[in-house]
Amino acid sequence: MRDMAKAPVLTPQAEDFPRWYQDVINKAGLADNGPVRGTMVIRPYGYGLWERMQREMDARIKAAGADNAYFPLFIPQSYLTREAEHVEGFAPELAVVTHGGGKELEEPVVVRPTSETIVNEYFAKWVQSYRDLPLLINQWANVVRWEMRPRVFLRTSEFLWQEGHTAHATYEDARDYAARVHREVYADFMENVLAMDVVLGRKTPRERFAGAVNTLTLEGMMGDGKALQMGTSHELGQNFARAFDTRYLSKDGERELVWQTSWGTSTRMVGGLIMMHGDDDGLRIPPRLAPVQAVVLAIKGDDAVLAKVREVGDRLAAAGVRVKVDDRTDVPFGRRAVDWELKGVPLRVEIGPRDLENGTAMLVRRIAGGKEPVAADALAELCPGILEEDQALLLRLSRERREARTTDVRTVEEAAEAATGGGWARIPWADLGPEGEARLAEQSVTVRCLVGEDGSVPESDDAPGTVAVVARAY
Amino acid sequence: MRDMAKAPVLTPQAEDFPRWYQDVINKAGLADNGPVRGTMVIRPYGYGLWERMQREMDARIKAAGADNAYFPLFIPQSYLTREAEHVEGFAPELAVVTHGGGKELEEPVVVRPTSETIVNEYFAKWVQSYRDLPLLINQWANVVRWEMRPRVFLRTSEFLWQEGHTAHATYEDARDYAARVHREVYADFMENVLAMDVVLGRKTPRERFAGAVNTLTLEGMMGDGKALQMGTSHELGQNFARAFDTRYLSKDGERELVWQTSWGTSTRMVGGLIMMHGDDDGLRIPPRLAPVQAVVLAIKGDDAVLAKVREVGDRLAAAGVRVKVDDRTDVPFGRRAVDWELKGVPLRVEIGPRDLENGTAMLVRRIAGGKEPVAADALAELCPGILEEDQALLLRLSRERREARTTDVRTVEEAAEAATGGGWARIPWADLGPEGEARLAEQSVTVRCLVGEDGSVPESDDAPGTVAVVARAY
Repeated sequence: MRDMAKAPVLTPQAEDFPRWYQDVINKAGLADNGPVRGTMVIRPYGYGLWERMQREMDARIKAAGADNAYFPLFIPQSYLTREAEHVEGFAPELAVVTHGGGKELEEPVVVRPTSETIVNEYFAKWVQSYRDLPLLINQWANVVRWEMRPRVFLRTSEFLWQEGHTAHATYEDARDYAARVHREVYADFMENVLAMDVVLGRKTPRERFAGAVNTLTLEGMMGDGKALQMGTSHELGQNFARAFDTRYLSKDGERELVWQTSWGTSTRMVGGLIMMHGDDDGLRIPPRLAPVQAVVLAIKGDDAVLAKVREVGDRLAAAGVRVKVDDRTDVPFGRRAVDWELKGVPLRVEIGPRDLENGTAMLVRRIAGGKEPVAADALAELCPGILEEDQALLLRLSRERREARTTDVRTVEEAAEAATGGGWARIPWADLGPEGEARLAEQSVTVRCLVGEDGSVPESDDAPGTVAVVARAY
Repeated sequence: MRDMAKAPVLTPQAEDFPRWYQDVINKAGLADNGPVRGTMVIRPYGYGLWERMQREMDARIKAAGADNAYFPLFIPQSYLTREAEHVEGFAPELAVVTHGGGKELEEPVVVRPTSETIVNEYFAKWVQSYRDLPLLINQWANVVRWEMRPRVFLRTSEFLWQEGHTAHATYEDARDYAARVHREVYADFMENVLAMDVVLGRKTPRERFAGAVNTLTLEGMMGDGKALQMGTSHELGQNFARAFDTRYLSKDGERELVWQTSWGTSTRMVGGLIMMHGDDDGLRIPPRLAPVQAVVLAIKGDDAVLAKVREVGDRLAAAGVRVKVDDRTDVPFGRRAVDWELKGVPLRVEIGPRDLENGTAMLVRRIAGGKEPVAADALAELCPGILEEDQALLLRLSRERREARTTDVRTVEEAAEAATGGGWARIPWADLGPEGEARLAEQSVTVRCLVGEDGSVPESDDAPGTVAVVARAY
């Protein structure tokens, strides 16, 4: 379609990135705003992306030894108040149910903003001895955090997520598990499925989860150079264990407090996917994630063409490609082609009467770009390799952008300048410190994470050589 | 374990069925009561059953052409009131959020008890022309209906479910789709995966869903002879379309109201599974559903035994069996064996030092009963066939029970007697009618559904030969 003249369907990114983002969401049919402020309706194509994310994540979570379970949506208000920092962090965002079954409730209940408190109430019952540890639980659920400045997928009053909750016998075991999820579940999924470059680091005390002693994060650079927090994994120490008296009988016969972690990723990842890979023509979905990896389009509705697109579709499916046949020839071909481009389907195979004569099909690559005729018989063998190439290309592009737009600086002023100019800054944490961090905050610039000089995750805030990654963030 | 003397772990069914049910849920680790009245915590083993149900159902829902999506948890109170019968049906069960983000809300919002109203708000936007129909949507979600007499899985204030919502151009198309879901999604899943005998019929006007013009149901007979509604599929006619002005442009250029369906099944199916197949030793999970189809137990912790159980486990897995190796030899073997029996795992393979000498393993069948030594090398070939046999056996047993405990009667008194005596009654609807139905209700006996004489689903309440199936119900 690139060679045909067409009016732009989307606001160009360079003109207005937030409007481009909203245009993509509307035009690609990803989501609508819900009727209650800050909520969203996830439409089938958007939900299809989330389902694929769930499937890939769930396999990694299970491989890390955690089992799925489900805790209630409603939490007694009194639970929240047991961990002081936690309630302080979440109180302003709570939705409160005061009436149920036609009566005013004796104690109001909150709609879960996260489940550490209710999980601990049950962990305290389930954990008896060291034999029950580690206890590794995950849940897929909706949570509610009242949102003053909502934006679809990125900040919504209700969102879908997974939240992991674990209890361990020792500090070391909990610390190692939080790090394992950070790397083996989250980073592995984001890099190898979402094709997203992410920086792994630890949060500063200012940016930590309410109730955690350490928060590990994964930060991605979006198309406009701002940062998005893609997921976090927390060491909770014994904070919640103390609040809920979650103890185990040790081998020595002592009743010891457990050490805990929690970790979460959400539908916000869909927003990250859009903003990291999208271009002026719409989404670009990484092939390993894509619900539809290739669409086979009939240009015209004659019988031979229809037979051919179905045959090609079958052969691609047999080759392991997630394929869709588009034979809706009552809709103009150009409109359908633009629509699949918008939806970011990695490969389009277009077949018309002339292709039948030549035994060819037009292969259009959404990620690498370009279109060229290929032998129709060769498609099934060709496509899986192309999909893997394009998967790798997307990851490389996102890494190159982050590297190109990141500046090493030494002063707060330089950091602020880089971050407000559409990029990231790296500044030694020893040069910035909590005071410099507070000054940056006045310009809506934050320390996204602390990393080691060699890119490792520092074991403490004051580890020598620690570098702060500074950016504006969603 | 049957030959060893043991104290009963569970209250026998014959002594107190509801207590047996609660015992199974506790002892098999399926669920706990939540802190807010009527809510539940679904523990990993219980959630594993639900996950398997979801996977099998989801495949059937997609095969029926529906796409998954997600609508918000919070619904403006005003939506509910637009369909008069609907609000009347659900008002007493609503949970109401009055405060969000630290402020009182201008309009209170309800936590969804079901999503017809909010779905229609969006269908009205999405549906433009006849080309957009049928619109077939499903969502997996939690819903809240305040419950006065809660019972875990069966009646909980919050439960997990799938709810399908569709819009069609014609009455016939909507009617046929509701019937298709009833049969190809629900009945197929329940019979072929859950191994549950279900009676397919239509609800009387008294028992219909609030807002529906026809409700199709699947009713199962539990171990105590009571009925459980396992799922429903509704024809909504144009009731919600009228309330939300959900219209499409027809081929003739007219703005016509759509015809709709909705259909749902929930975590209540887990309760049905327990009560239909369980016995005095615990659960019996149908093999096609079972998260673990076979467990391989090391009787003792010596190296040769441990090596053997792992080898057998690997070979069963390679044969396509969902297998778990239980090598926790620090827990007494007897306790583990009882635990797996309670959990209803279809096959247990027990291996000890003596088995190594003989090249055998003890194969214990949870469903058919009995234990016998088999050649260890033969297990991988043997087990898949046994699992299919036991799947068929469970379905046959449930069908035989229903047939044995169902009585044909002609009077209201006889129907009430059969239903209160631990069975079902069949009575010609012409002999019972709405008046007889009201008299039965006084004794907590209900018409579960109307069926044709030949077991078909009647097309109307007054179709000739229609029979009412009458029972006490959960």
